[in-house]
Amino acid sequence: MSRHLIAIDWGTSSLRGVLMDSQAQVLEKRAFPQGILSVPAGQFQNVFEQRFGDWMTPGTLCLISGMAGSRQGWREAPYCPCPAGFEDLAAHLQWIEKDQLALVPGLSIWHAWTPDVMRGEEVQIFGALHSLQLQDAQFILPGTHSKWAEVRAGQIRQFKTYMTGEFFALLTQHSILAKTCLPDAPWKKDIFLQGVSQSQCDGGLLHHAFTARSLALFEKLGPAQSSSYISGLLIGEEIRSAREGKRQGDAPPLDLLILGNSQLSLRYACALEALGLACQTLSDEVTWAGLFALAHNLFPQDFKATA
Amino acid sequence: MSRHLIAIDWGTSSLRGVLMDSQAQVLEKRAFPQGILSVPAGQFQNVFEQRFGDWMTPGTLCLISGMAGSRQGWREAPYCPCPAGFEDLAAHLQWIEKDQLALVPGLSIWHAWTPDVMRGEEVQIFGALHSLQLQDAQFILPGTHSKWAEVRAGQIRQFKTYMTGEFFALLTQHSILAKTCLPDAPWKKDIFLQGVSQSQCDGGLLHHAFTARSLALFEKLGPAQSSSYISGLLIGEEIRSAREGKRQGDAPPLDLLILGNSQLSLRYACALEALGLACQTLSDEVTWAGLFALAHNLFPQDFKATA
Repeated sequence: MSRHLIAIDWGTSSLRGVLMDSQAQVLEKRAFPQGILSVPAGQFQNVFEQRFGDWMTPGTLCLISGMAGSRQGWREAPYCPCPAGFEDLAAHLQWIEKDQLALVPGLSIWHAWTPDVMRGEEVQIFGALHSLQLQDAQFILPGTHSKWAEVRAGQIRQFKTYMTGEFFALLTQHSILAKTCLPDAPWKKDIFLQGVSQSQCDGGLLHHAFTARSLALFEKLGPAQSSSYISGLLIGEEIRSAREGKRQGDAPPLDLLILGNSQLSLRYACALEALGLACQTLSDEVTWAGLFALAHNLFPQDFKATA
Repeated sequence: MSRHLIAIDWGTSSLRGVLMDSQAQVLEKRAFPQGILSVPAGQFQNVFEQRFGDWMTPGTLCLISGMAGSRQGWREAPYCPCPAGFEDLAAHLQWIEKDQLALVPGLSIWHAWTPDVMRGEEVQIFGALHSLQLQDAQFILPGTHSKWAEVRAGQIRQFKTYMTGEFFALLTQHSILAKTCLPDAPWKKDIFLQGVSQSQCDGGLLHHAFTARSLALFEKLGPAQSSSYISGLLIGEEIRSAREGKRQGDAPPLDLLILGNSQLSLRYACALEALGLACQTLSDEVTWAGLFALAHNLFPQDFKATA
C-alpha cells in the first residue's frame, strides 16, 4: 500500500496544508486564515479534524511545522538547540499519534546571554537544502520576524531574528510617520533604494526613521512614497546589521538564498543588489519539500525522495 | 517703567509659561495640557489671551518658543539653517505684534540629502549656554524625539533627531513585546543596564528588540522588567548611533550635557556612565533663561542679564 503524507504549516496567522503521494507529488492544497492565535486552547485536534480529517485515511502520515508546536499551540515541541541538522529535527518530533501525526520542533540558539528561536523556518531551510542538494548557504527568510540562518555542512550553525516586518507595521500605522504615509501605496523601487542607501549612513535606525518625517516636512517625500522609503530603511538596516558581525578571518562567505513570498523577496533582492551582494530567491513552498524529506527520513521504504 | 517678559514654551502636547521681571526673576508660572495639536486653526490668539491675557499689560514683551511656530501652529516661523548662533534666532523672530509678541524660529540642518529640524530645543540649548557661560558642549535633549546637538564657539553646528521615546511607546504598547510587558512597572536600574549592554552588541535594534521576546519565552525577563530592558536597548542604541559618526581626527570631544526632566535624564546619565562617558544634567527649565536672554538681546536697556 502506498502511503500519503499530509504536510502542514500551522503558523501564527494562517493554516496551510498539502496532501502528497509517496513520490512527493502534491495532490491537493488547502489554506485557511486559522492561525494558532485564533484557535482556543484544547481545540487544535478539532480544527485539524475539521480541516484535514478527510485526508487522514489509514496509513497516512501527518507532519506539522510552525507555531502549532509552541507553548500556545497544539502541544509544545521543545526547541532543538543549534547547531542542529536535519536528523536532529527528525529525532525530536513530538508525536501526537505514534507514527501517524507529529509536530516538528523549532530551533533555539544562544548569543551570549540572549536566546533566539525559530519555528517553521527550519523546515523551509532543510527543504531548500534538499531541493538544491546543498550543504552550505546563508538563508534569509523575510517576514514579520525575519530570520538569517547560516548553514555549514548541512547544519544550522547560527541564526538571528530581526523584527523588520513588525517595525514596518508599527512605523507606517502607529507612529508620527503614519500621518504622512499611505501604507498601501504601490512599491516604488527608486524611493525604496533611497531608503536602503540612507540606512547605510551614520545615524542608526532611530535617526533614519525620523528622516521620513523631516523629508515630508520639506516636501521631499510624498505620502505615496513614504512606505517604500520606510521599507528601504528597515530592510537596509536588517542587511547592515546581519553583516556587521562578519569580520575578516571568519569562515568563508556563503551564497545568499532568500526564501519567501515573491513580493518581499523581490525587495530584499533589490536591496542586496544595490549593496553589491548577489543572491538567489526560492519560493517558501519549500516547506513541503522539507516535510517530505522528514517523512522519507522516518520511513524510507514508504516515502521515496525523487530529487 | 520696568518691563516684564512673558516666556512661553508652546509644544505639541503642552503649553507652559512664566511671567518674569526685568531682572529675570520668575514671578508666576502656569501650565496647561493645551498643546498645539489640541488648538483648532485660527484659535491660537484666543487661547493665548485666555491663558495669559491678564499678564499682557502695556510694555510687556512676550516670546514663544516651540511648535507654536510650526506650520500647524499659530504662524510659521521658518527654520533658521545651521550653523546658527543665538543672534540668528534673535534676528529671525516672527513678530505677531511688533516689539510685543513674537514666535522664536526653530533650526534646520541638512545631512547630505536629508533634513533635520528642531523647535524649542534651540532655546533650551542657548539658555543653558547662557546660564553656564559656556561656548562649547555636546547637548542631549531626551524625549519622544531626542536631539543631540553639537555647539562650538556659541553656534549649533550639528544636530540629529532620534525617535527613541516614540519607539519605546510603539514597542511597549503596540508590538508583540507588549504581550509580556507591563509598561508602567517601576524602573529597574540593573535590568535597564542589561538592555544598554545588549544594545552595544552586534545585531542592531531590529534584532535586539526581539531579545525582549525571546528572553520572556525562556522566562529570563518578567513582565515587570521588560519596559526597563526595552528602555535600556533604545537609549543604548541612541547613544551608540550618536557616537558612531565620531572618528579619530575629528574636532576635540565636547563635554556632554543632558537637558531634560529628571527621570529621563537619570536614565541617560546611567547609560552614559555604564558606557564610560561622563555627563552633567540640567533641568529643562533653562527654557526661561533662553527666552530671557533673547529679550535682553532685543532690548538690553529693559531686560538686564544677571548672570
